Formats: sequence, C-alpha cells, structure tokens
Amino acid sequence: MAQASTNMRLKLPITCFILEIILIILFGVLVQYNHETDAKEWYNETQSGHSNYENDFYYRYPSFQDVHVMIFIGFGFLMTFLQRYGFSSVGFNFLIAAFSLQWATLMQGFFHGMHGGKIHIGVESMINADFCTGSVLISFGAVLGKTSPVQLLIMAMFEVTLFAVNEFVVLSVVGAKDAGGSMTIHTFGAYFGLVVTRILYRPNLDKSKDRNSSVYHSDLFAMIGTLYLWMFWPSFNSAVTAHGDAQHRTAMNTYYSLAACTLSTYAMSALTAHDGKLDMVHIQNAALAGGVAAGTAGEMMLTPFGSMVVGFLAGIISVLGFKYLSPILEKKLKIQDTCGVHNLHGMPGILGAIVGAVTASVATVEIYGGGMEAVFPDVADGTIDASFQGVRQAIALAVTLGIALLGGLIVGFILKLPVFGAPPDTVCFEDSIYWEVPGEEPGHEDQLTAVRMEECDKLNG
Amino acid sequence: MAQASTNMRLKLPITCFILEIILIILFGVLVQYNHETDAKEWYNETQSGHSNYENDFYYRYPSFQDVHVMIFIGFGFLMTFLQRYGFSSVGFNFLIAAFSLQWATLMQGFFHGMHGGKIHIGVESMINADFCTGSVLISFGAVLGKTSPVQLLIMAMFEVTLFAVNEFVVLSVVGAKDAGGSMTIHTFGAYFGLVVTRILYRPNLDKSKDRNSSVYHSDLFAMIGTLYLWMFWPSFNSAVTAHGDAQHRTAMNTYYSLAACTLSTYAMSALTAHDGKLDMVHIQNAALAGGVAAGTAGEMMLTPFGSMVVGFLAGIISVLGFKYLSPILEKKLKIQDTCGVHNLHGMPGILGAIVGAVTASVATVEIYGGGMEAVFPDVADGTIDASFQGVRQAIALAVTLGIALLGGLIVGFILKLPVFGAPPDTVCFEDSIYWEVPGEEPGHEDQLTAVRMEECDKLNG
Amino acid sequence: MAQASTNMRLKLPITCFILEIILIILFGVLVQYNHETDAKEWYNETQSGHSNYENDFYYRYPSFQDVHVMIFIGFGFLMTFLQRYGFSSVGFNFLIAAFSLQWATLMQGFFHGMHGGKIHIGVESMINADFCTGSVLISFGAVLGKTSPVQLLIMAMFEVTLFAVNEFVVLSVVGAKDAGGSMTIHTFGAYFGLVVTRILYRPNLDKSKDRNSSVYHSDLFAMIGTLYLWMFWPSFNSAVTAHGDAQHRTAMNTYYSLAACTLSTYAMSALTAHDGKLDMVHIQNAALAGGVAAGTAGEMMLTPFGSMVVGFLAGIISVLGFKYLSPILEKKLKIQDTCGVHNLHGMPGILGAIVGAVTASVATVEIYGGGMEAVFPDVADGTIDASFQGVRQAIALAVTLGIALLGGLIVGFILKLPVFGAPPDTVCFEDSIYWEVPGEEPGHEDQLTAVRMEECDKLNG
Repeated sequence: MAQASTNMRLKLPITCFILEIILIILFGVLVQYNHETDAKEWYNETQSGHSNYENDFYYRYPSFQDVHVMIFIGFGFLMTFLQRYGFSSVGFNFLIAAFSLQWATLMQGFFHGMHGGKIHIGVESMINADFCTGSVLISFGAVLGKTSPVQLLIMAMFEVTLFAVNEFVVLSVVGAKDAGGSMTIHTFGAYFGLVVTRILYRPNLDKSKDRNSSVYHSDLFAMIGTLYLWMFWPSFNSAVTAHGDAQHRTAMNTYYSLAACTLSTYAMSALTAHDGKLDMVHIQNAALAGGVAAGTAGEMMLTPFGSMVVGFLAGIISVLGFKYLSPILEKKLKIQDTCGVHNLHGMPGILGAIVGAVTASVATVEIYGGGMEAVFPDVADGTIDASFQGVRQAIALAVTLGIALLGGLIVGFILKLPVFGAPPDTVCFEDSIYWEVPGEEPGHEDQLTAVRMEECDKLNG
Repeated sequence: MAQASTNMRLKLPITCFILEIILIILFGVLVQYNHETDAKEWYNETQSGHSNYENDFYYRYPSFQDVHVMIFIGFGFLMTFLQRYGFSSVGFNFLIAAFSLQWATLMQGFFHGMHGGKIHIGVESMINADFCTGSVLISFGAVLGKTSPVQLLIMAMFEVTLFAVNEFVVLSVVGAKDAGGSMTIHTFGAYFGLVVTRILYRPNLDKSKDRNSSVYHSDLFAMIGTLYLWMFWPSFNSAVTAHGDAQHRTAMNTYYSLAACTLSTYAMSALTAHDGKLDMVHIQNAALAGGVAAGTAGEMMLTPFGSMVVGFLAGIISVLGFKYLSPILEKKLKIQDTCGVHNLHGMPGILGAIVGAVTASVATVEIYGGGMEAVFPDVADGTIDASFQGVRQAIALAVTLGIALLGGLIVGFILKLPVFGAPPDTVCFEDSIYWEVPGEEPGHEDQLTAVRMEECDKLNG
Repeated sequence: MAQASTNMRLKLPITCFILEIILIILFGVLVQYNHETDAKEWYNETQSGHSNYENDFYYRYPSFQDVHVMIFIGFGFLMTFLQRYGFSSVGFNFLIAAFSLQWATLMQGFFHGMHGGKIHIGVESMINADFCTGSVLISFGAVLGKTSPVQLLIMAMFEVTLFAVNEFVVLSVVGAKDAGGSMTIHTFGAYFGLVVTRILYRPNLDKSKDRNSSVYHSDLFAMIGTLYLWMFWPSFNSAVTAHGDAQHRTAMNTYYSLAACTLSTYAMSALTAHDGKLDMVHIQNAALAGGVAAGTAGEMMLTPFGSMVVGFLAGIISVLGFKYLSPILEKKLKIQDTCGVHNLHGMPGILGAIVGAVTASVATVEIYGGGMEAVFPDVADGTIDASFQGVRQAIALAVTLGIALLGGLIVGFILKLPVFGAPPDTVCFEDSIYWEVPGEEPGHEDQLTAVRMEECDKLNG
C-alpha cells in the first residue's frame, strides 16, 4: 500500500480543529437543554407538582457513570494487551470517544426527533451518545494497531452517522426493542469494523507480528478493562430501559448471564488451549460475551434461568470463535481482526438478537401483566401480537447487518485513500510512530524497532 | 504431599461445566423474580400507589455496584502484589467469584425464606450474594499461590454453603445485627481460610520463596485493589441496612473509621519497619482494617468519634499482626497465610464484633428515638433489653468462630485429596503452571523458573 | 539546603499520632450526626411526612463516591507518571487525603456555621471535605518528589485551614457562586502550591533529573488517574449544587466541556510537540482542563455550546502552558512545578472564574425563570442585580489569589525549616528514600541510585 507520511504535525490538528469547530457551531445552532436540565422549565414542573427526585438525573445518572467508565476505562484498557500499543489503545480510544459522543448527540438528536428545530438533551441523550460511541470503539478493536488517529476520526464520523440511521430504522421504523444494543451496538459495530479491516487488508502484516502480542504486565492492564466492562454491563443494558421493574430486571438478568458466561469461558479455555492452560485472550474477552448476548432480551421476562443459559452459550461460542474461527477468517477471508471483535461482539450480538426475537415472540399478558406496555407497547395496545414482535426483532437484525456491511464497505474504501498517514506494515502495533515514548532500558527488541522506525522516518521525509 | 498432575485440560472444564449446569437447573426450578423485578407484580404495585422511585433498585443499586467493584477489582488486584501470580490472582478471583455469587443466591435464598417453594431475587439478594462471595475471597487470600483453580471451586462450594448456614444462625436464630459483616463475612472468611491453609501446610514451601514477594509494578497494581476497597467500604457496610438515616449513617461512620485507620497504619508502619521506611504490605492491607472493624457497629449510633477510635485501633492491631504475629503463626502454628488475612480480616473482624456487642448493649431510646426499630427491632418492641442484644452479638461471634474453624477443618481435609491438581512446592506462586504466560525478555529469574517447570511437566506426564 | 535526617522512624509516627489524636478528641467534643444521619431525628422527620428517598444520601451519595474515586485513584495515579515515585505518589496522596478530609470536616464545619456549638455532618459535608482535600492534592502536585511525608502533613494542616477561610470569605462574605470550585479548589490549590514550591526552590535539582521523567508503564498507570478524573468530573462539579435541574445541568455542561477540551488538547499536542508526535504529559493533564474551567459556571445556564467553547479554550491554554510557559516559570521565576499544576489547575481555574463572572453578569429572569433562586438567590430576591453578581465573582477570584499567594508564602517558609526530613537534591523523585522497595532485576539505573542512596544514608547517620 502506498503510504503518505505518518507525521501528524498538521494532519491531526487540522482534523481535530475542523471537527470540533463544526461541532461547536452546530451545538450553538441546534442544541438546547431539555425540560429537566433547563432552570426555568424544571422550576415550572416542580411548581406543577413534580419533586426533584423525579428528575431523570436520579434514575439514570449512576448508570450513566458506569457506562462512561466502560467506554473510557473498559474499552480503553481492554485494548492495552498489546505490548507496545498501550498509549495508542488508551489514547486513541480517549480521542475518538470524546469526538464521537459529541457527534452522536447531534446525529441521534436529529433522528430521535427535534423539538421546534432544536435537539433537547439530558442524561438519557448522554447515555445514548455513549452507547453510539461504544459501537465505534468496537470497530476500533478490529483495526487496532493498523490505523492512524486521523483515519480513526474519519471512521468515527461516518460510523456515528450510520449508527444513528440504523438505530432509527431498527427502533422507530421497524419497531424492534434493543435496550442494551445486542443489534444496534454490538452487531453493528463488529460487522462494520470487520468489513473495514477487510478492505484495509495488509498482506505483509506479519512483518509486525513480533509486536502483535502481549507481555505480562500488558495483560494485567487489559484485565482492568475486562473487569470494568464485566462489572458494569448490568448498568449498560439497563441504562435506558423504562424506570422501575424494567431497569431492575435488566440489570439482574445481565448479572446472571455474565456469571454463567464466565464459568463456560474458563471451561472452554482450559479445554481448547495448549496443555490445559488458560489463555488470557479468552478470559479477557469471551467472559464478556454474556453481557452482549443479554443486550436485547435483558429487559424482557427472560428469567434468571434463561439469562444463565444465554450467557453459558455465549461463552462457549466466543471461545470457540477465538480458537477456531478467527484463524480461518484471517487466512481465508483476509479479515485481520486484532481484538477478535467477531468473537466478543459479532457472534454474541447475533445470538442476543435471536434470543430477543424468540423471547419477544412468546410474550404473554399472563407473564407481563400491565407491565407489558413498558416492554412491548404495540403488543400491549393490541396493534400487533407477540409473534409479530418477534418478526420485527428478526427484521431488525437483518437491517443492522445490511447497513453495517454496506457502510463498512464504503467507509473502508474511504479510509484506504493514502492521505491519512496509516502506518507502514513494518511498524504496526507500535506506539512510537504517533507518540513520544519515554526510554526504557534499551534491549534487543528496541533496537529492532529503531531500525524499523528509520524506515518510517524516511517516508516522513 | 503426593501430587496429581497439575494439568487442567479435563479437570477444570469438567468441574466448571458440572457446577454451572447444576446451577442452571436449580435456578430453573427454584428461582423467580421478586415483586420489584417482575413486570406484572411491580406494575400492580404502581397501580396501588407506589412510585417507580420507591423500587429498591434506586436505593441500593449504586451501593451494589460499589460492592461489585470491591469483589472483582478490589480483592482481585489486592492480591496481584505477588511478582509472578497476577494472572491467577485476578483470574481465579474472577472465576470463583462468578461461581460463588450464583451458588450463594441459592444457598442464601434457601435460608432466608422461600416463597411458595421459590427463591425470590432482586438487588438486595445480589448484594448478599456478593457479600458471601467476599467471604470466599478472603479465604482465597490465605491459600493464595498454593492451590489449583479446581481446589478453589470446591472450597467455594463448601464455604458458600457454610456461610449461608452461619449467616442464618447468626442473624435469624441468634438475632444478632451484622450489616457490614464483621462477623459473618470477615471473621468467618478469615478463620475458615486460616484453618484450610493450616491443613494444607507445606513444609517445603520455602522452595518457592523467591516468588513469594512483590516487584515494583506488582505493588502498584495491588494499590489499585487497596484503594477501591478503601473508597467503597462505606458502600459495603451500608449496602443492606435500612433505608434513610441507617444507610446514610453507616456510610459516614465507615468513612471516618477508615480515615483514622489510615493514619495509624502509616504511623505504625514507619515505627515498626526497617529504617523507618514504610512497608507496602502494611499500607495495602492494614489501612483497610478500619472498614472491617466498623462492619457490625457501623449502622448503630456509634458516632463519628467512636468510629475513629475503632479505626485507629484497627490500624494499630493490624500492623502489629503483620509485623509480629504472622511470623509466629507461620513458625509455631504452621499457618502459611499468604495475604495475611488474619491481620486484615481476622483480628479486625473480632474487634468489630466486640465493638458491635458493646455499642448494642448501651443503646437507649433516648439516643435512637423511634429509629430504634430499624436498628434493634427486638429492643424497640420490648422483647429484650439492650444489654441482651449485646449478649446476642457475643454469641454470634462465638458461633461464627465455631462454624468457621470446624468447617475449615473438614474442607481442608477434602481439599487435601490428591486429585485436584495442586502445584508442587517448587512451583507455588507461579502463573505459568495454570496459564499461558507471554514471553518477556528472558532473564536469570525466568531460566530458574524454566528448570522448575520441567519438574512440573514431568508430573503431568 | 541543610538537611535533617530523612529517616522517618520517629518523625512520621509522632506526627501521625499527634494529629489523629487531636482529631479524635475534637470530633468527640464538637461533631454530631446531622438530622439525616441521626436515628432519632430522621425518624421524627419521616413521622412528619418526609420519605426515606428524600434523605440527601440518595441525591448525593453516588456523586460523593465519584468524587472520592477522583481524590484517591484520580489524583493518586495521575502522579504515578514518574518512573521511581509510584509508591510515594499513590501512598502519600492516600495519607494526606485521609488526614485532610478529617481536618477539613472540622475547619469547614466551623466556618459553615455551628449548631449549638456542634458541627453537624452528613453526605454534603463529606463531599465538601473531599473537595478541600482535592485542593491540598493539587498543591502536592507542585512539590511532588521533593518533600517528605511529614512536610506534606504539615502543609495539609495549614492549607486546609486557609482553604476553609478562603471558602468562607468567597461564598459567605463575598456571596460568590463556585459549586465546582474553579476558584476555591483549583485556583487556590494551584497558586498556593506554586508559591510553596518557589520558596522550597532547589537550585541543584538537576542532580535528580534522570528520575524526573516517566517510563512506559508509569505513563499507563498515570492514564488510569487521568481517565477517572475525566469521567467523574461531571459528578465533581455537580456534587453540591441544588437538587434537580441544577445538578443535572452541571453534570451535562461539564461533560461537553471535557469532550471539547480533549479534541483541542490532542490537536495542540501534535501541533506543538516534536515531529508531530503526541506527548503523554499533555494528554494526561491538559485534557482535564475543561473540567476545571467549567467549575464555576457549570451550574449556570452556560448552554452546551458555551461549555464546549470554554473547554476548547482550556485545552489550548493548558497545552501552551506546558510547552512554553512552564520552562519560563522554572528558569526565570524559579518555580519547579513537578506536575505542571499551573497548566492544569492554575490558568484553567482563572479562566473558569472569569467565565463564571461573565455568565453570572448576564443572567436574566427570562433565561432562568423561577430557577434563578437556586443559582443566584440574591439576584432572584432583588438584593442585587446580575451584573453585581459578576462583580462578586471577580472579587472572589482576587480574594482567592491573595489568600493563596500569601498563605503559600508563609507555609513555604515553615516547610523550609530543616527538621521535616526533606530529601537531598540528589535523591528527589525516588521512592526508596521513604519506602521499602522490592528488588527488581538490577540494572544500570539501580546501581546509580544505589550510589546516591549511600549519600543519603550518611546523612541519616
């Protein structure tokens, strides 16, 4: 691949400044406080009988902060497993998340319905913006180590837009339910990213293979990411469900799904890995698949039993994917999936979508009672019956896969333009190409890198 | 000790799969949503006048998440201080916690009272399951580095069961109060684990002594665990107290107890350690003793002054334990307590029980007013007087110690059966026996380990 | 500078014990539960119509815990960037924070108004104590690596006292608003610390310059601190605002300010740093300036647009400060600012104060409606007009700077007394002077340190 200079001296500042200034202008023109964050409007509500504790802040802010930790610490540190890519993993995660959440506020606001030409925002829109950001970070996992920060920002810009379109179609046009985003977040982010990394295929990536692995401490840093994702996934899936039993039930279903998933992950890791030894890649990733798979059905009356079955299967599928499917995808389909997002987000996301469709289709008034309205409003008011809600869920999965694959295709080709400063094949998975890296005791490894860096500097003229 | 193969290829998957499948079946048969997580039941409650913000989720979920972080990050990273046992510390902590919280849901549900043959669950049962898990992780600290993951799962299975029995006797039969678990969690977990490690005594453990210590970065990882435990202990102690003033007061008492404990810990560490230099072992552990010691009396009208006195003493006792008592326990009583749980959970737990008994026995209506009922219901309704509540607390401590010691004895002998794949004395405190460990620059240390690993591989045939 | 022995064997225990015993006695004499933590009083409130969910605990405890994480993990790990000062960064941060929050409870309680000679405490006073502690930790950043723990405790004792005086003057006498503490916390802490480090100027500090820098893993640990500060800053700024819309709005304004700040920080870092490579110092620090700068105006009707403009400017100013101003301050003004607190807390704090003054002065009833009272009570009731509120804000900034500079001057000279065991110039930024440091593979670097340690041991006789 013909490479432009990887020097970010002008490319990155220009991209960041243009994007941020556009964001600020659009926020100035389009965005307003909603009735719960506006001093005058909320005061008027309290005068007409509402109490401060009814402000949505108190229902959702703790969940928001848990989701926020998942986005910045969870995703950021999960990707620090690479031995020489910790700065980029945490740092680019930070950059594209900070951009995406602003852009998502606008895109989702536009599709969720404007109020007199204005987008109204509050804690729920903040959570939704973080959700959309999560999808971008999943795609980041697929291309990790092989892209420049400018490429990532361009990808985020397009992906956020397409995410908002897909979310609108799935939730508002098709009328599917997907509170924890098995489809809209995980399936979308994974397949979008997989197509992008396919288009950006690097036949000579094995020139960087010595850096495409972990060291002891980098695996411990990655476990910080894993555990925060695992612990707070119940908050993630329940963050935007209806108040009361729905939020409570979703968190609990997710908790049990994850616990069951963890046991099947450890079992499968020891069973499939060399010499019966556990593989950190499985523990760091597959143990989370139970959260992904409970993303759609978590708010439904899935029962703790059902949640555990789902989590149990998700862990098995995910480990098998890492062990047997990923090598095939790489060799046969030329999909270089750095973090294995297909195994953590792709297949478990589809599993979650199917579980959601089945669970929806068997919903009855006997089980849900008056609570049917909060979960399936169209079933509750008789517009459709439950089996058709299941069909809606299946359509939503198909739509999501379609938009993700097509979107990833187009965006992949855009990112392939040789102007964004992608690293050469010899210096992938390496922080020092984009970061000032402090010295450590110089060893054999660093000398090898130094040689390769020269190659890179030559390109930068 | 005659050793079976340490190869986990079949042992671990079989154990995990059997346990998880039993869990799933029992959940299917026995477990139901409670009235706050069930769509129909909560809807009916809202129809009869309850508001969504009265759902227990909003009172307890933030505390639950703090407790959850303590269990998975707090305990997990606290134990990463060992130089070559970070994967196992975090990873086995993760595995046995994920198992224990499911098993605890069943055991505690059984003893806390079934509803028409069913266990009803919600956020409070999730907190209680995490609490029970905490007790298992304390015992894990005593045997850290010397046990296989299968041994740990077997230990967890028995310990969770005995925990539920003891908790039932202490809270429901004896009628003691122990919201933060000085007795039921800390004293129980510590003495159970100490007896287990005594039974599993390894006379030749010094063959692994070069790995039974920290390195610079492992001590920093451990501080992540320490600080999360310290910060969230107020949430831990208050997580299942009565709503309102009780939850508020318990969190505050614990906050001041921990602050005072930190100052006495630093003072004692400098005073007792070599050359007046601070010892990371003390800071990582003894500074937390104030949380343990406020576990029983935290919900009572202990006053901030009383809390600080308790914390201050706990820090002193704990450092003295690390410095002077632990070496004696090891040499004279053959108790090899890897993490020093006797100093962090054992003695401070007993201190907390005594403080609880004294504080209960001096409770008066003058101090508690109508709030007496939430804290001491039997004193409030005249069934007993306060001094007898103190006696109940003392009996509860004795019962806890008895069940812990006897239970640990039996379980220790079960774990000694040479079928669970425990590591040989020469390869304790070493991740590579159970984990694929990534390469680092090979040094002198690793070559020594390699030699020892051969020994181990021979056993594995 | 003539140095006393750096041995802490007696100095540190004596200081800790005296301080803690004084604290315990004063708490015993002066401190009581407030009406929401007292069993009797809260029970009486519930009898007169209040519900448990109206207890301030449920409004503020999640925010408190976020602030608590910022204080102990955020500040603590942010300072671990130094290669050989991780134990001290996290450990001294822990010690002085645990002391400061107790002392702040007393000092702030005294100035915030006693109740019949007693200080009443609850979750709001706990947040305020943590806020005051944050100010001390900012000053700690300026002197990091060059002070003994005893010096730090003495500094904390004086600084907390002066903080409480300044806070009282700013909020109660002048009548300014400063919910997130742009002035009272950040400006105060930064300029106080800068004057202290100026007084403690070490002309020969370059003898320790090889340790005054990061290594690869220490920068990753520091990113844990950065991200927790960044994620929870919305909770920080909103923790003590009025319930309802004010808390909700403040969190949201801060969220957008930080997001915009992150993009301008990355842009400026690439633009100004060597070869277009990103500098971890900027990312770790300047990306947080948006939180500081939204500290005063965050609760006002700043609009998301206004918040983003403020954050955008704060990031630019902060990176420019690190790049161009810090070297000048060090060379010309002899201010050795280890963490660059002038760039993260000083200038952005002043920016935040100015933004607050401007935003206050343009407040109208048209914008705030009945909500004016919660934000600007004196404007709402007609005592003053909005422009005068702006004047008050400006006066508050001047007062804060005056007290910080004068206080820092006096305390700096006190700390210069050669009795507190400060490290010699040759062994600054080095853990092993105050900590038992575990061995690592000995390398060239450690041998150099060993030579310097001998020098130090000679002083210790």
